[in-house]
Amino acid sequence: MDDDTLVSLRRDLHRKPEPAWREFYTTTRIVEALEELEADIDELYVGPDAIAGEHRLAVPDEAELDAWYERASAYDIDADVLESLEGGYTGAVAVLHRGEGPTVGLRVDIDGLPRAESEGAGHEPAEMGFRSEHEGAMHACGHDAHATIGLGVIDAIADSDFSGTLKVFFQPAEEVIGGGKSMAESEHIEDVDYLLAMHIGLDHPTGEIVAGIDGFLAVAHLEATFFGEPSHAGARPEEGRNANQALATAVQNLYAIPRHSEGETRVNAGVIEGGSAANIIAEEARLVAEVRGETTELMEYMREKGTRVLESAAEMHECELEVELGAEAPSATSDQGLVSIVADVAGKTEGVERVLERDKLGGSEDATFLMERVQENGGLACYIGVGTDHPGGHHTSTFDVDEASLRHGIDVLAGAIERVSLEQPGR
Amino acid sequence: MDDDTLVSLRRDLHRKPEPAWREFYTTTRIVEALEELEADIDELYVGPDAIAGEHRLAVPDEAELDAWYERASAYDIDADVLESLEGGYTGAVAVLHRGEGPTVGLRVDIDGLPRAESEGAGHEPAEMGFRSEHEGAMHACGHDAHATIGLGVIDAIADSDFSGTLKVFFQPAEEVIGGGKSMAESEHIEDVDYLLAMHIGLDHPTGEIVAGIDGFLAVAHLEATFFGEPSHAGARPEEGRNANQALATAVQNLYAIPRHSEGETRVNAGVIEGGSAANIIAEEARLVAEVRGETTELMEYMREKGTRVLESAAEMHECELEVELGAEAPSATSDQGLVSIVADVAGKTEGVERVLERDKLGGSEDATFLMERVQENGGLACYIGVGTDHPGGHHTSTFDVDEASLRHGIDVLAGAIERVSLEQPGR
Amino acid sequence: MDDDTLVSLRRDLHRKPEPAWREFYTTTRIVEALEELEADIDELYVGPDAIAGEHRLAVPDEAELDAWYERASAYDIDADVLESLEGGYTGAVAVLHRGEGPTVGLRVDIDGLPRAESEGAGHEPAEMGFRSEHEGAMHACGHDAHATIGLGVIDAIADSDFSGTLKVFFQPAEEVIGGGKSMAESEHIEDVDYLLAMHIGLDHPTGEIVAGIDGFLAVAHLEATFFGEPSHAGARPEEGRNANQALATAVQNLYAIPRHSEGETRVNAGVIEGGSAANIIAEEARLVAEVRGETTELMEYMREKGTRVLESAAEMHECELEVELGAEAPSATSDQGLVSIVADVAGKTEGVERVLERDKLGGSEDATFLMERVQENGGLACYIGVGTDHPGGHHTSTFDVDEASLRHGIDVLAGAIERVSLEQPGR
Amino acid sequence: MDDDTLVSLRRDLHRKPEPAWREFYTTTRIVEALEELEADIDELYVGPDAIAGEHRLAVPDEAELDAWYERASAYDIDADVLESLEGGYTGAVAVLHRGEGPTVGLRVDIDGLPRAESEGAGHEPAEMGFRSEHEGAMHACGHDAHATIGLGVIDAIADSDFSGTLKVFFQPAEEVIGGGKSMAESEHIEDVDYLLAMHIGLDHPTGEIVAGIDGFLAVAHLEATFFGEPSHAGARPEEGRNANQALATAVQNLYAIPRHSEGETRVNAGVIEGGSAANIIAEEARLVAEVRGETTELMEYMREKGTRVLESAAEMHECELEVELGAEAPSATSDQGLVSIVADVAGKTEGVERVLERDKLGGSEDATFLMERVQENGGLACYIGVGTDHPGGHHTSTFDVDEASLRHGIDVLAGAIERVSLEQPGR
Repeated sequence: MDDDTLVSLRRDLHRKPEPAWREFYTTTRIVEALEELEADIDELYVGPDAIAGEHRLAVPDEAELDAWYERASAYDIDADVLESLEGGYTGAVAVLHRGEGPTVGLRVDIDGLPRAESEGAGHEPAEMGFRSEHEGAMHACGHDAHATIGLGVIDAIADSDFSGTLKVFFQPAEEVIGGGKSMAESEHIEDVDYLLAMHIGLDHPTGEIVAGIDGFLAVAHLEATFFGEPSHAGARPEEGRNANQALATAVQNLYAIPRHSEGETRVNAGVIEGGSAANIIAEEARLVAEVRGETTELMEYMREKGTRVLESAAEMHECELEVELGAEAPSATSDQGLVSIVADVAGKTEGVERVLERDKLGGSEDATFLMERVQENGGLACYIGVGTDHPGGHHTSTFDVDEASLRHGIDVLAGAIERVSLEQPGR
Repeated sequence: MDDDTLVSLRRDLHRKPEPAWREFYTTTRIVEALEELEADIDELYVGPDAIAGEHRLAVPDEAELDAWYERASAYDIDADVLESLEGGYTGAVAVLHRGEGPTVGLRVDIDGLPRAESEGAGHEPAEMGFRSEHEGAMHACGHDAHATIGLGVIDAIADSDFSGTLKVFFQPAEEVIGGGKSMAESEHIEDVDYLLAMHIGLDHPTGEIVAGIDGFLAVAHLEATFFGEPSHAGARPEEGRNANQALATAVQNLYAIPRHSEGETRVNAGVIEGGSAANIIAEEARLVAEVRGETTELMEYMREKGTRVLESAAEMHECELEVELGAEAPSATSDQGLVSIVADVAGKTEGVERVLERDKLGGSEDATFLMERVQENGGLACYIGVGTDHPGGHHTSTFDVDEASLRHGIDVLAGAIERVSLEQPGR
Repeated sequence: MDDDTLVSLRRDLHRKPEPAWREFYTTTRIVEALEELEADIDELYVGPDAIAGEHRLAVPDEAELDAWYERASAYDIDADVLESLEGGYTGAVAVLHRGEGPTVGLRVDIDGLPRAESEGAGHEPAEMGFRSEHEGAMHACGHDAHATIGLGVIDAIADSDFSGTLKVFFQPAEEVIGGGKSMAESEHIEDVDYLLAMHIGLDHPTGEIVAGIDGFLAVAHLEATFFGEPSHAGARPEEGRNANQALATAVQNLYAIPRHSEGETRVNAGVIEGGSAANIIAEEARLVAEVRGETTELMEYMREKGTRVLESAAEMHECELEVELGAEAPSATSDQGLVSIVADVAGKTEGVERVLERDKLGGSEDATFLMERVQENGGLACYIGVGTDHPGGHHTSTFDVDEASLRHGIDVLAGAIERVSLEQPGR
Repeated sequence: MDDDTLVSLRRDLHRKPEPAWREFYTTTRIVEALEELEADIDELYVGPDAIAGEHRLAVPDEAELDAWYERASAYDIDADVLESLEGGYTGAVAVLHRGEGPTVGLRVDIDGLPRAESEGAGHEPAEMGFRSEHEGAMHACGHDAHATIGLGVIDAIADSDFSGTLKVFFQPAEEVIGGGKSMAESEHIEDVDYLLAMHIGLDHPTGEIVAGIDGFLAVAHLEATFFGEPSHAGARPEEGRNANQALATAVQNLYAIPRHSEGETRVNAGVIEGGSAANIIAEEARLVAEVRGETTELMEYMREKGTRVLESAAEMHECELEVELGAEAPSATSDQGLVSIVADVAGKTEGVERVLERDKLGGSEDATFLMERVQENGGLACYIGVGTDHPGGHHTSTFDVDEASLRHGIDVLAGAIERVSLEQPGR
């Protein structure tokens, strides 16, 4: 694939960001792109065949899935592929067989975010006409580039000295930490000997490569609903049981969970929503929160404290509480055997000006489910950072990538995959 | 109008509840019903001609108005009338001239509430098939009955000894305290000598009439938006400015505004909404609150304190704040000259078993704008309660009216209006 | 007693304010003054003989009692009387028998407040040298004047046409709502046919009398202690269970208990205290709160909600909770039979320029225990306001009384007591 | 000094714990012990001569100082020394000259904590009769052992091959982070080439030595007072400006300051106190809080956010705010040149079973002021941990030390000081 094709593909995906489990257009477009490659893909698993559907986490409700499915149907894309994804079974796994050798996996994620994209001057996607067509949704974390790089790597490997099997996992629903587990539980990961995962940006500029990223925070979501009792706020304030008050008490106290001496913790009450009218005591209020920890134990500490806060806040305001334990991901580390190869390849790659052997993420990622599985099976795993100049921070309305980094990512990853197949490093 | 017609009209309106400024079907249906009456209406003002459009308060945004307009368009109703309401100019004023005499006004409100209606066993509208067709909206305060009674009164007056002019104000948007002002600012109220307003239920059973209701709480809405700064909750928690935290702090402290020794106050943070995803520090959060007071001064006290809470909460969490002062209504009292006539008429009305001369509302009502205007102009005003057995409380999902009370309301009101025109009481 | 004696007695008491159950000097001084009267007191009950000791509420701890006892011992007063009060058994009941007739009670309270008195220019007690000698304590509610008036009334009645028995209750511990019950449970109240109680000031100026005060709020105290677990705030923040956090959550939510549609409610977290050092997670925190209601039912509503808030806040922060239900008083109303006499007498009293028949207190008073008891026994009770110009509000550091009102109070009360004994009004 | 002397000295100090700046007995007793040593101390600086008095931080008020001074006066100790400490100028610096060589400093802290000591079975000081005689105060962090070790080291060095000058800094007020600065600003530190500081326990068992401790959290205290307006909580709740409410809002939000991605932060609202009576809206409330950070920058982040929270909470409740920036300490690291020597000496010391080269404190210490000053002057500094079995955690009521570790501490420190004087390591 030449640079123009890469850029055009990335921009097409950028224009149609689809949040978690709603990657209907995205998955279909990836499948079409795979079919358009010069090289033949040996095996292709799409949607329900690519993932263990029962292990999907944080799946939105049917109405939401249907609305996005409808939206995707309006595009001129392969209707059979699209249809196979119905109900939120998205993602794909593409397999290349190239002789004897180990099975190497590459995992890229493909979903967008539910946030509006900037229309401002200086935001290149807006200025150059590939800003999101889906109001309120945006590729604000570069997964459009990830999908493009995944395709570019297959294309490059097909034409290399690679020896073995390559599996590229186009993973859905990373942003809600919802898709990793469903791919880690699928059969496709079972025979993978080496797994590479990657992310663009992360505050590293274009030309910089991080060979091995660690410091993934374990994460869990808490989706709480407070059920109170409505009443007229003027005439009968004492008869209500106020779900909004319960929620506000919970939010105040969630952020105030004690810090922990054994390492970093996080908490965020990201989404709140409650009540129906100014003059009605709120009958129902919903909170989507997440907790994180430097280790799984620290995350559990936060989750336990957070659950207690939710329960007590409900009790204080005489509300019923339902807590759904949603998405969740463990921690993980990159194996040195792979890190060394990636660092070495990167150092020799055109356009790469600086190679960091290690860095910390400080966020969470459900690639850790796949890394953990491969490592449990005796394989090696590694998470790679591909620098890109991004004007706005990740998840902000002015995030964008420097498209020059698409080629850097493909070259480093394809180069490393080739070398791994030949050297087969041990732990 | 016979009882069957009344019931059938009320149920038709009940089936299609439309919240404030979205009473497209409702207004059109009322106009059609007026035109179907045996007696000719002398003057009829609809939509923009019935209200002072620039004084509408708490009008929803265009998308919301359009959605409900579309919904109304799907019904088989008078397209010309409907079209005249576009943009949220709803309501109607019907005028009957019957010889010499004073101008008597009757004000009824017509809007529904944005809350779901019960589907449960025992909820008569559900069991008898006239439950709301509009999911998430409901006539949970009896304004379907009010509109019906308004029509019934015109019909009855046309056929009575009434002498003078009758104006019936079918007022939109009472539930958001948004429509009263627009009718009080219209020319139609200017020559009204006597104004009656009414409400069904209010915890009074079928057969009970309250001749004069007082104790209207003055009310004002505060619509606040906190604007923060998003950031990744795992990777850069310190870079966010958390709109959800600001909102939670505000909610906790709004309810905690000191009580006042001079009378009743109220506060409610009825609607909250903030943030976009579990892993993003919330960029924006919205709060719709209301404050009330037994007098306008007490309401102002609450509004001033509430505004300070909002501002300080924003400042604490480094958010920007926008506060829109929304709907608002004054306090009011019922004049004894009218109360006495209503009590007397009610005592002689078939089906009325108990008459209370006075009671307190304890809530707010924007009929007070019209009452205040008439009283300022030297006229008299009175607010009447028509008892009805209602299984659930006002604004709850199981609210319903006893349809027998439709006739009681019409008889008492029409009787009183006739008497007023003949006796012309002074203050 | 001439005016100089009154003023000098009042100033002496003002100089030595003693808070609830610590009225050691005060009680002894009152006994001495009774003994100095020209007329003989027929019966005198002091300390444990004046009250039902087991019904004392809100008694401070021994160390506190001892400290004040020591302080009183330093004054040159009757050691035998003082000794009889040890342990916080304060107060006195003085009885005059004057022939046939009903038993009339007068209740005056005698305690000071635990608050510092102003030293500022313009504060007369400071300027004229009778400011509190007890740092941190002050007669900021005029009970020094009440005790003085009580003595003046006995003196006046002894010399009047009064016929019957007069009992004057010098009640301790009103400010903590702690003494009223112990006098209402004593035998002395049992035969009282008519009870008058009184308060000075209450925002009424000198020369104004309120014949019958109502609107007493029922009140109850909640004394809560949160027991957590200390830990080093830097090294092991997660090991603490934070009593200060529990308390702060409770305070925020106590004030936010929903207002009630049936009447006035109040809540105050008046005293908070917790933790031992900046670097230790607070092990223990204490909260003294009070709730009130226009009726006893409304107070119970507040107490129930408040208790729930305390319990849930403790649970949220994994603290143990102890709640002591402290002082408490019911509501009460003044009987018209007495109100009419007081109003009539006041209207003819020199220096009284304005008489209000009724007014509302809007606070609490444990005179209500005595009023309730007398009314339950078939007698009449009445609470009288004696206006006085007071520069600062009640309970503030610049509160003071206009000493001219001492005479007004004595004249109105003695006059009314005389009239009551002669007329013996029925309900 | 033999073991019996050490133990007896430590127990004597343990019996009379004195909190920060109140170490009147402690300082005097140390001076006496220095004078009792066989070896002559060459220079001895006491109280105001040992510290830069104007740089004392977090000094308690005069009444508090006086009370503790009185308490110390009751003991049979050198009155001249005691007198020199009046006003809270505590601490001492002892100097030994032993020929040519560098100046080596040893810093030990001597203050107790304001917390009650356990009386429980199993708490050795209670069982063996040396529990605190000062109710509410306790040596709960082992500074009694530190002072003892400091004396033992002087004694040992006097009798060793040490060549140069030894200065032992008996530092007051470490627990409030108040004394370190005053010693770092004194002239005594200026010529110190090598500084050792030490702490006992820290979760390391008897027989364990940590040669170099790092991870000192920078710390700062915030002492805030909210000034509101009192009013009667029943009669005029709206006229108060509630200092307790402001404080509770602040506490809730202080703990909720966002975590920081660049490292550990801490916050604690350790002491709260407000209001005067249940029925008065609190006029004044005080909060003693502390913030910490892994670096000084992170501490500053917390302090800035914390200050904003305090200010906004005051504004929200219409209170005035005074914030005193109290105690403060920077971060610090141990120099490898010293760490290596300490580790080597410790490895050869009798009774030492395990040597850790490095560990993290996770707390704060104002020894860092002295370390920073020595390092700025081109010298080396090192902070050493001396393991001891402690049944309860630091700062808890059951904390105690294993007295066997007194000897370990003396031997390791004296050995290291001797070696340093001979080897004079560079950076």
